[in-house]
Amino acid sequence: MQKKLLEYNVGEAVEAYAFIKSAQKGIATNGKPFLSIVFQDKSGEIEGKLWDVSDEDLKRYIPESIVSVVGEVQNYRGQKQMKIKGLRETSALDSVSADQFLKTAPIKRDEIQQELMHYLFAIKNANLQRVTHYLVKKYEAEYFSYPAAMRHHHEFVSGLSFHSLSMLRIADQLQQQYTELDADLLYAGIILHDLGKVIELSGPVATTYTITGNLLGHISIVSNEIAKAAAELQIDSEEIVVLQHIILSHHGKGEWGSPKPPLVMEAELIHLIDQMDASLNMLTKALAHTDPGTYSERIFGLDNRSFYNPKYNKEE
Amino acid sequence: MQKKLLEYNVGEAVEAYAFIKSAQKGIATNGKPFLSIVFQDKSGEIEGKLWDVSDEDLKRYIPESIVSVVGEVQNYRGQKQMKIKGLRETSALDSVSADQFLKTAPIKRDEIQQELMHYLFAIKNANLQRVTHYLVKKYEAEYFSYPAAMRHHHEFVSGLSFHSLSMLRIADQLQQQYTELDADLLYAGIILHDLGKVIELSGPVATTYTITGNLLGHISIVSNEIAKAAAELQIDSEEIVVLQHIILSHHGKGEWGSPKPPLVMEAELIHLIDQMDASLNMLTKALAHTDPGTYSERIFGLDNRSFYNPKYNKEE
Amino acid sequence: MQKKLLEYNVGEAVEAYAFIKSAQKGIATNGKPFLSIVFQDKSGEIEGKLWDVSDEDLKRYIPESIVSVVGEVQNYRGQKQMKIKGLRETSALDSVSADQFLKTAPIKRDEIQQELMHYLFAIKNANLQRVTHYLVKKYEAEYFSYPAAMRHHHEFVSGLSFHSLSMLRIADQLQQQYTELDADLLYAGIILHDLGKVIELSGPVATTYTITGNLLGHISIVSNEIAKAAAELQIDSEEIVVLQHIILSHHGKGEWGSPKPPLVMEAELIHLIDQMDASLNMLTKALAHTDPGTYSERIFGLDNRSFYNPKYNKEE
Amino acid sequence: MQKKLLEYNVGEAVEAYAFIKSAQKGIATNGKPFLSIVFQDKSGEIEGKLWDVSDEDLKRYIPESIVSVVGEVQNYRGQKQMKIKGLRETSALDSVSADQFLKTAPIKRDEIQQELMHYLFAIKNANLQRVTHYLVKKYEAEYFSYPAAMRHHHEFVSGLSFHSLSMLRIADQLQQQYTELDADLLYAGIILHDLGKVIELSGPVATTYTITGNLLGHISIVSNEIAKAAAELQIDSEEIVVLQHIILSHHGKGEWGSPKPPLVMEAELIHLIDQMDASLNMLTKALAHTDPGTYSERIFGLDNRSFYNPKYNKEE
Amino acid sequence: MQKKLLEYNVGEAVEAYAFIKSAQKGIATNGKPFLSIVFQDKSGEIEGKLWDVSDEDLKRYIPESIVSVVGEVQNYRGQKQMKIKGLRETSALDSVSADQFLKTAPIKRDEIQQELMHYLFAIKNANLQRVTHYLVKKYEAEYFSYPAAMRHHHEFVSGLSFHSLSMLRIADQLQQQYTELDADLLYAGIILHDLGKVIELSGPVATTYTITGNLLGHISIVSNEIAKAAAELQIDSEEIVVLQHIILSHHGKGEWGSPKPPLVMEAELIHLIDQMDASLNMLTKALAHTDPGTYSERIFGLDNRSFYNPKYNKEE
Amino acid sequence: MQKKLLEYNVGEAVEAYAFIKSAQKGIATNGKPFLSIVFQDKSGEIEGKLWDVSDEDLKRYIPESIVSVVGEVQNYRGQKQMKIKGLRETSALDSVSADQFLKTAPIKRDEIQQELMHYLFAIKNANLQRVTHYLVKKYEAEYFSYPAAMRHHHEFVSGLSFHSLSMLRIADQLQQQYTELDADLLYAGIILHDLGKVIELSGPVATTYTITGNLLGHISIVSNEIAKAAAELQIDSEEIVVLQHIILSHHGKGEWGSPKPPLVMEAELIHLIDQMDASLNMLTKALAHTDPGTYSERIFGLDNRSFYNPKYNKEE
Repeated sequence: MQKKLLEYNVGEAVEAYAFIKSAQKGIATNGKPFLSIVFQDKSGEIEGKLWDVSDEDLKRYIPESIVSVVGEVQNYRGQKQMKIKGLRETSALDSVSADQFLKTAPIKRDEIQQELMHYLFAIKNANLQRVTHYLVKKYEAEYFSYPAAMRHHHEFVSGLSFHSLSMLRIADQLQQQYTELDADLLYAGIILHDLGKVIELSGPVATTYTITGNLLGHISIVSNEIAKAAAELQIDSEEIVVLQHIILSHHGKGEWGSPKPPLVMEAELIHLIDQMDASLNMLTKALAHTDPGTYSERIFGLDNRSFYNPKYNKEE
Repeated sequence: MQKKLLEYNVGEAVEAYAFIKSAQKGIATNGKPFLSIVFQDKSGEIEGKLWDVSDEDLKRYIPESIVSVVGEVQNYRGQKQMKIKGLRETSALDSVSADQFLKTAPIKRDEIQQELMHYLFAIKNANLQRVTHYLVKKYEAEYFSYPAAMRHHHEFVSGLSFHSLSMLRIADQLQQQYTELDADLLYAGIILHDLGKVIELSGPVATTYTITGNLLGHISIVSNEIAKAAAELQIDSEEIVVLQHIILSHHGKGEWGSPKPPLVMEAELIHLIDQMDASLNMLTKALAHTDPGTYSERIFGLDNRSFYNPKYNKEE
Repeated sequence: MQKKLLEYNVGEAVEAYAFIKSAQKGIATNGKPFLSIVFQDKSGEIEGKLWDVSDEDLKRYIPESIVSVVGEVQNYRGQKQMKIKGLRETSALDSVSADQFLKTAPIKRDEIQQELMHYLFAIKNANLQRVTHYLVKKYEAEYFSYPAAMRHHHEFVSGLSFHSLSMLRIADQLQQQYTELDADLLYAGIILHDLGKVIELSGPVATTYTITGNLLGHISIVSNEIAKAAAELQIDSEEIVVLQHIILSHHGKGEWGSPKPPLVMEAELIHLIDQMDASLNMLTKALAHTDPGTYSERIFGLDNRSFYNPKYNKEE
Repeated sequence: MQKKLLEYNVGEAVEAYAFIKSAQKGIATNGKPFLSIVFQDKSGEIEGKLWDVSDEDLKRYIPESIVSVVGEVQNYRGQKQMKIKGLRETSALDSVSADQFLKTAPIKRDEIQQELMHYLFAIKNANLQRVTHYLVKKYEAEYFSYPAAMRHHHEFVSGLSFHSLSMLRIADQLQQQYTELDADLLYAGIILHDLGKVIELSGPVATTYTITGNLLGHISIVSNEIAKAAAELQIDSEEIVVLQHIILSHHGKGEWGSPKPPLVMEAELIHLIDQMDASLNMLTKALAHTDPGTYSERIFGLDNRSFYNPKYNKEE
Repeated sequence: MQKKLLEYNVGEAVEAYAFIKSAQKGIATNGKPFLSIVFQDKSGEIEGKLWDVSDEDLKRYIPESIVSVVGEVQNYRGQKQMKIKGLRETSALDSVSADQFLKTAPIKRDEIQQELMHYLFAIKNANLQRVTHYLVKKYEAEYFSYPAAMRHHHEFVSGLSFHSLSMLRIADQLQQQYTELDADLLYAGIILHDLGKVIELSGPVATTYTITGNLLGHISIVSNEIAKAAAELQIDSEEIVVLQHIILSHHGKGEWGSPKPPLVMEAELIHLIDQMDASLNMLTKALAHTDPGTYSERIFGLDNRSFYNPKYNKEE
Repeated sequence: MQKKLLEYNVGEAVEAYAFIKSAQKGIATNGKPFLSIVFQDKSGEIEGKLWDVSDEDLKRYIPESIVSVVGEVQNYRGQKQMKIKGLRETSALDSVSADQFLKTAPIKRDEIQQELMHYLFAIKNANLQRVTHYLVKKYEAEYFSYPAAMRHHHEFVSGLSFHSLSMLRIADQLQQQYTELDADLLYAGIILHDLGKVIELSGPVATTYTITGNLLGHISIVSNEIAKAAAELQIDSEEIVVLQHIILSHHGKGEWGSPKPPLVMEAELIHLIDQMDASLNMLTKALAHTDPGTYSERIFGLDNRSFYNPKYNKEE
């Protein structure tokens, strides 16, 4: 079976298929154009430069195309880099398809959907359940395929729904341990908290921000969607105001994008669970490629810290 | 003609009608209840304490009632205070009504409405005009009677619409001086920027925050209202997204309650005009009661600064 | 059965036994001394003022004594206050003892200890288990009786060990959901993270800061204790350095008292679990006395926010 | 007529005259020297690299010289860049002069001066007018030719006086709308607020900071100048202290370089007008080169934000 | 010999002469006026309240008068307070004069002046010495009698010059240890750094801020004075610019009132020496009244910290 | 005698021996590996690039080796850079040794040790002296050879002890000028304050952070060492707590790595002396290479400021 991109060690010769995540043209110091290509497969991403590119190259090696690359893995400032020796387009003869290369959630989309809908139907309050159900149905295709972010955390196919599901599982345990919590608010709030990303982001693959996303942000987008859904469903009750508040406050502070800080217990808790799940996702991803006894790359979403991977328990 | 509350000097005996803005019960150090009453008339507010109050007093002297007060103005830590010597309820015989005591905008509600609607109809873009018109009509009664805030700035009857009108006048001049500006966006954005206060605040008099206001904030409330209005009017166009962005960003920064910073020129400008009109309102109000050669009380909305009233140009 | 202090409504006459948590002398505006007494029982705390106190009163009504109080509950700035009408010392005849009045953890000390020791023995790494066991044993009496703080959160008898146990339960679930986590580090780190409070604080009742506590802080105290324990047990291995790091970093940031930010995955997670358990404890405590449809008192440990208690799901 | 530098599209061949704003030597990765040249004409600036330069080139292509350049416009990280194919010095035969290339204020220097002096003579207070007049006359040549800044805003010939004039026009309108304002203070304060730039900056072209400018700053420089002018004119009155205060406080806060925050109404307003005019200048400049439906380059003086140029009203 | 005010213990009866530093009228909760009087002698300050004051009392007990007080020292929230039992004005028969009560520098004014002038004459650079000498002579009377601040540090007669002298002594040692330092700049900068306080403050006793002081601040005042002195002395050289820079930057940062941060080595050092001498003065003053084994009152100028006075070396 | 590295001017041909401080591999834009080498001798450091390196080169030119370099000094963005023309390893025949190249403290290690021990023996309190002596002896070799930091300040052989000695000299003077200070605490605190660097850093040459150093930090390391030393010496007294507090608080604030702010006078002062000595070391180092009339490179440890080197007193 073919080796994955991040499984090659520094110095090793590479011959592999890869998905082009992005390809940016630059001008070399000798005045000639080159391409900075980010190759991707399920193991992760690696960057390489293709020098002296022709106009045909520029049209050929574009995002979302699949290529065959021959090269060598090198170390550049502590990060792996691809030294490209040969590059060619693939055709039907190569028998490759995009989904072989795209990172996806660790469980299947259907399973995510099934378990998440189970939590949705566990919401007892009729108004909360109806609004939540209405919006998940309205954006069903996107909700279960989009990533949770462009990069940083859960930046993979179905990342949005998988992130919501992980949070639901934590919330489930906590509402058993702390019985004062209102499970309805927790479940409805978690399911909807990042749903605005289906409008803020461009799609499941090679994701960018949309103009609407940039001008309004996913927080206000969900708030608007709840307002329209409640009007459509003719619901006008306190729980909808509280649900909107949970959405608006889930980033915790004004500096982090929330127009209101959490002022309801479940809002505060959803903010904390969101932070915890995102942190664990970023940490496990970074440490997966960090040898015991060394430090990870800097993690932007965690104040740019490098984390140490202890070796005491990993030596044989 | 009767002297107004803030026209009495320190040491002067007072005999006057007044509107009770608030009345809060406390327990004196001798264990007996007392009332902290804020008296109000068109000249402003003055606080006084009524000692050893009975249960009847507590029911009698409540917010929004009109009383006749006999007393003396004293100086307490640099602020005028009413020493209450006598207090009685008023009846029909006194021929007094609330509107004699409530501070209002410097021009009449009708004139405000007329001039503001003139700006509204000057919006050339049909979508912007329709959404703006729809919402001003939907909340017409409140929009032209509510204050712009509980205290701090434009905290008087019709303060909300008067503040919007003052901003429109500034914007009108600026779009003539800087011709790149889009007057449509400026006018629609200004007219709607604080409209959410008709839901965030309780009413034109003795104003407090509503629960919905506290949990969502006027910024998100307007955003929701625009979303519903556009759905109702079946408008789905870029200018509505930009208009929502203007509303969301008009506080300028996350720390100040905006989920997005201004990312459109007119959004940045509306933020600056809002700040300028609010500052001028707070300053002229504070300096109106500050003798030349002395400092004003501290102004909370301006970083708690005391402003100096120069005397060089005010001496005869 | 006797009504508890916080079960009396405003306006209701009180006749009750109470524990004096603190008693501070003041000088009234008439020049006479008075006492500000904080009464305590299992329902919580209420303050009252005793006017015109004699020298005998000052010696009689001191912290940790039990008294019989006759009075009335009043409302002072939104907080319940005791208007004292009569106060007397108690004697053997009253058949009261301190433990009737002191708030304790919701489960018994023995159960806390048993479950916590279960987690301790689940630590598989011998070095981590030995150091953790050594320190819990060294301070066993204090560890299972001290509160977790003077006020704010888990400020009750056995609060320290109950807080650690709550965190262990959350960690237990998380290490099942996120299998990359090292349960040994989580358990050892959580059990020891606040152990320094047994030196930082004065004791389980009427708790204050010790001078050593004030000058070093519980974080550095635990770090020193681990250093001495490891020297005593002749352990010199990486896991002890990582354990010390977890202790040093568990407040998350320099501004919050940690000399190092978390640089190991389990350190980051313990910081987040600590924050989550403390927040939930403060919130449930504050909301227990907040009527549906109203706001809680301001919670100092949560940026001084007032939380709203929704009413939609609490109406019959 | 010759096309201007920023009128060439990406990919287009260039043949043009240009003014060299700056030329900085570097060492290429092949060890050979090169020049980073910033070319300038009235349309703006574009950078290009000249490779393998000789010692003669280094002496020939220096700031403030005029050259003829042959090349091609390329796109480098979203910014236009000049690929230099040929470069030569110009001589008398080329019939070019510096003022053909330098960006200037949108209205002529004489008109600026005339309108600004009109405001100066509208100052009714004799002391304020005399000091203001004295200083404008003392630095007349520089005041009407210097830019208002090295870059960021009004960074062109006569930018300093044009910026002051724009602010005077805004102030003029505001003092009509808010009649409590003292027009004398506004006019004198605005005219002098940035006059220190004639000492802080090196000159109208290829501008840098002087050592005195760097060590004292234009704010303290004007303050000193007013002190000396008042001494010279034997004026010792409150209005001069207030005028100095306006200068010292016009950046609004200590963090922004003001040793005092505004403590006089007109000082606060001048700070706000300054911010407004600078912001509008930066925005219109950036958006002039931003296609509808896209984002501007990041604007350093506006918290590094990229602004969106709406397209709804720009499509035919 | 008469006991000093702060030498009386809590509970002790007082009979003493005292200087009235300030006397502020208030209204008691019974509606009657009272006076909050700050009594002062060389040992420090103590506050007391005089109840039910008559109009004569208000005219009699004013700042800078000397009184005879009979009373008792009480403890109020950890601070000593005077319970006034009797108060009378003094006359010639009492043989008391203000200087018996005013705290002064620990060494005599003449000695301060002599040692400080010695440092002034040690300045070798003629321009620096002439400007420094000119300004010390111009404000000689005030410079050697004013305090360095209203409160916080060196808030006593001759505090300004004593603070400068203490700094000169530290600088003297440092320039011997670090030979790269320019002693001329250090001495001239230190002597002038706070000279602006002679205009910023009202005088040596019962000190307040002047309006000029409030609007300009002592930093800009010295800068202006140097500008005028150099013009008068016809000096126009780099060292004067550097000297002005030292003055402008000696608070270290914009947030602390400096329009420029230190950009010259001696400027940075003077900032640090200033901070060190002010801190040591605040600390020794606060600890002088703090028993070993206890904490000082909070020190505003040191981030409101309470300092611990160790007891280990103070027990017999 | 051979010229030192930083004594060569820009443009001058270099032929010199040098110590390799660090050598980092990179990939050039042509895809070939190169080495960024930092050459070092007693005059300082200079960087150069060696192009097209072979595998042998990578093994040959490693940190701590001594080489002979032929090249030319060039200017790159205001910093000197070495253009390498030839490079070879040295052998016994070259008669060079590392200590010829390493920067050391300005006085000899023996003299540092002798003077520092003199201060240590001047500590009168037996407990403080014993703990301090115990730890200096325990780490004697490292304490007198390590630098005080990797870069920034006192980053040379014996820098740690020289920095401590400089601070002791300042403290000595201050305790004579301010007699309330406790010299014992000052001396013990200063001697131990940075001793943890012997564990935090890797060694005296080519210094990096150890894993223990990174996870615990030198502040907590010293705190642990004192705890263990006191246990070993069976000392349990207040002065040891105060000494630990001084160590913990010597960075002044949580943001700067101290888990406690200074709460004892000598702790505050040691923080200020540390800051002063570090600042003077950074400044004199940077200004040594800054021509009069120009600005130094930016100094990271001083908020990234560039300092001006005045010329008025340096011209002949």
